[in-house]
Amino acid sequence: MGAVWNFAAGPGAMPAEVLARIREDLPEFKGSGQSVLELPFTGPRFRELIAQAQSDLRQLLAVPEDYEVLFLQGGASAQFSLVPLNLLGGADHADYVETGYWSRKCIAEAARFCRVNVAASSADTGFDRIPDPRDWSVSSGAAYTHITSNETADGVEYPWTPVRLRTPLVADMTSSFLTRPLDVTSFGLIFASAQKNIGPAGLTIVIVRRDLLDRESPATPAVFSYRRQAQSASMLNTPPTFAVYVAGLVFEWLRNRGGLAAMEASNRRKSGLVYAAIDGSRGFYRSLALAEFRSRVNVCFRLADDVLTERFLDEAQDRGLLNLNGHSKVGGVRASLYNAMPEEGAAALAAFMAEFANRWG
Amino acid sequence: MGAVWNFAAGPGAMPAEVLARIREDLPEFKGSGQSVLELPFTGPRFRELIAQAQSDLRQLLAVPEDYEVLFLQGGASAQFSLVPLNLLGGADHADYVETGYWSRKCIAEAARFCRVNVAASSADTGFDRIPDPRDWSVSSGAAYTHITSNETADGVEYPWTPVRLRTPLVADMTSSFLTRPLDVTSFGLIFASAQKNIGPAGLTIVIVRRDLLDRESPATPAVFSYRRQAQSASMLNTPPTFAVYVAGLVFEWLRNRGGLAAMEASNRRKSGLVYAAIDGSRGFYRSLALAEFRSRVNVCFRLADDVLTERFLDEAQDRGLLNLNGHSKVGGVRASLYNAMPEEGAAALAAFMAEFANRWG
Repeated sequence: MGAVWNFAAGPGAMPAEVLARIREDLPEFKGSGQSVLELPFTGPRFRELIAQAQSDLRQLLAVPEDYEVLFLQGGASAQFSLVPLNLLGGADHADYVETGYWSRKCIAEAARFCRVNVAASSADTGFDRIPDPRDWSVSSGAAYTHITSNETADGVEYPWTPVRLRTPLVADMTSSFLTRPLDVTSFGLIFASAQKNIGPAGLTIVIVRRDLLDRESPATPAVFSYRRQAQSASMLNTPPTFAVYVAGLVFEWLRNRGGLAAMEASNRRKSGLVYAAIDGSRGFYRSLALAEFRSRVNVCFRLADDVLTERFLDEAQDRGLLNLNGHSKVGGVRASLYNAMPEEGAAALAAFMAEFANRWG
Repeated sequence: MGAVWNFAAGPGAMPAEVLARIREDLPEFKGSGQSVLELPFTGPRFRELIAQAQSDLRQLLAVPEDYEVLFLQGGASAQFSLVPLNLLGGADHADYVETGYWSRKCIAEAARFCRVNVAASSADTGFDRIPDPRDWSVSSGAAYTHITSNETADGVEYPWTPVRLRTPLVADMTSSFLTRPLDVTSFGLIFASAQKNIGPAGLTIVIVRRDLLDRESPATPAVFSYRRQAQSASMLNTPPTFAVYVAGLVFEWLRNRGGLAAMEASNRRKSGLVYAAIDGSRGFYRSLALAEFRSRVNVCFRLADDVLTERFLDEAQDRGLLNLNGHSKVGGVRASLYNAMPEEGAAALAAFMAEFANRWG
């Protein structure tokens, strides 16, 4: 197969350099006589590896000292339950902002653990925007306010961080994590599963302000207690060692590429190429998101003539533009442009889109 | 480094053939243009991969049709909480058998979710045996009876499966899973994390009888609901794709090596070599477990003169016999002889033990 670009929404593309490095480290890790898959997690080599990964992540995001960085299992969807279990404290409810498929899933799950106040929703306008925080109906006594910083299925993204909320801000940052610099101090808690911008499915990162660690429900499974895992440096039980190792390689790769500011610039250029192909198609392609809220990482669009969608996806695949199908519940086309997608990939997609539109428009 | 044998308790040694195969599959999986780490879990290639892994596991263990095989995240320790959350149903208590460090941990965690009746315990005799099931104080109305089929830290193992219990038998089989043939129909539920006999940490296998899927508490996080994951073929959320792929390779490796009967014979020979070195040492080495209950997979022993333990471990490491330290809470020496440990590894350890005893005895 020739040049191939993987636009999958997750697990997504990984940096070629990281894949090459994994291959080098198999079957033996740094002269240890063991592969990285076989390192005991209590031994000095793995302890060093996980500490380095945590330290590199802290540095990339400038995580302040009063925040814990946890490496957990279960995926972001597990956090939909684990956030209320860990953070409700004495409160009986929390505020949630509904901006698309994933925040809606998160709200449905949270409602099994507490009363959910939907402080704002863009459902009425088809999830085409982020509701203005000045209009949010935040409630009194809510344990926290939950947002989904990027809606992977709908292609809308917060262009700014809501500030001056009365309650700790909790963000599902799965698909936009590490795609631009971030002021961690605006958040009480950030969570992200790794299979989008980091790589291996099976690792979930939680960054939590330390003063929120005293709120957990007694019904929280021990290995999913933020407090207990923080006390154990994320090694209360066996961590997903290989995924942690790969994450560490990706953090190193990010640092070597100029860190998050460089990623932000590159992600703007990449998504800019694809949005330009949409906007220049004279309506052949349509993006549902309002311009201000367009996602830089999941560009979602439709063909005005929907019967052409399947042909578009088939032809794209034949040219090595893989996994462009939209989320199964949403349909259409979705190009995920995570950090590991090179600019050539986005350019190749934009060129194909223009050519396809010329041919069928 | 010369020949190296990894006796780690988990993550443990993996078959060299499997490690070589992973290396081959990186950076491209079967001509897909993507590595296995990058395959979308909703795509046909991964769906085929996980279905094959489940089918191979079913075949290895002869899992009957009325049992579900689930691939989850969280580790066996998460199951300590998730078993009561999923299986209590209307009951307020469950029976547990205490046979060592891990069953004790499991009991402490379960006690946060229900009343625990310790039906039997070998604590009084230092966890040197499995209590006779005829003496178990099983309770009326218990939701299930929980056992730990092999105590990884203490080196004792059930030589038989308890039968004719009034309640479904639940087994934490983490360290002995796939080390011998098993009559699955004796169990209501079996769970095992993968990092001992399968390989990659971050995958947990649950085999559960289908009629037990209607008992879950409403407080069960959705992604850890056996029922929901069974309905979604373990893809309710993103599974740990790489770990599932590696597990599939190990299942194939097991089949090619003659399946579980061949593993049982090999594991008996391997542990036999090490126990013979203990028993032939005229008291230089001591195994605390009674002969009948000695673990075939985690051979735990002490040096009669404990001041020699550190020297033993250091010298062993210099000879490529790695990770022989006992569990941090138990001490002593532990040789984990999982499926992937070749017989030469056990023989090399036995030879070193004899030589060391001769020199220092």
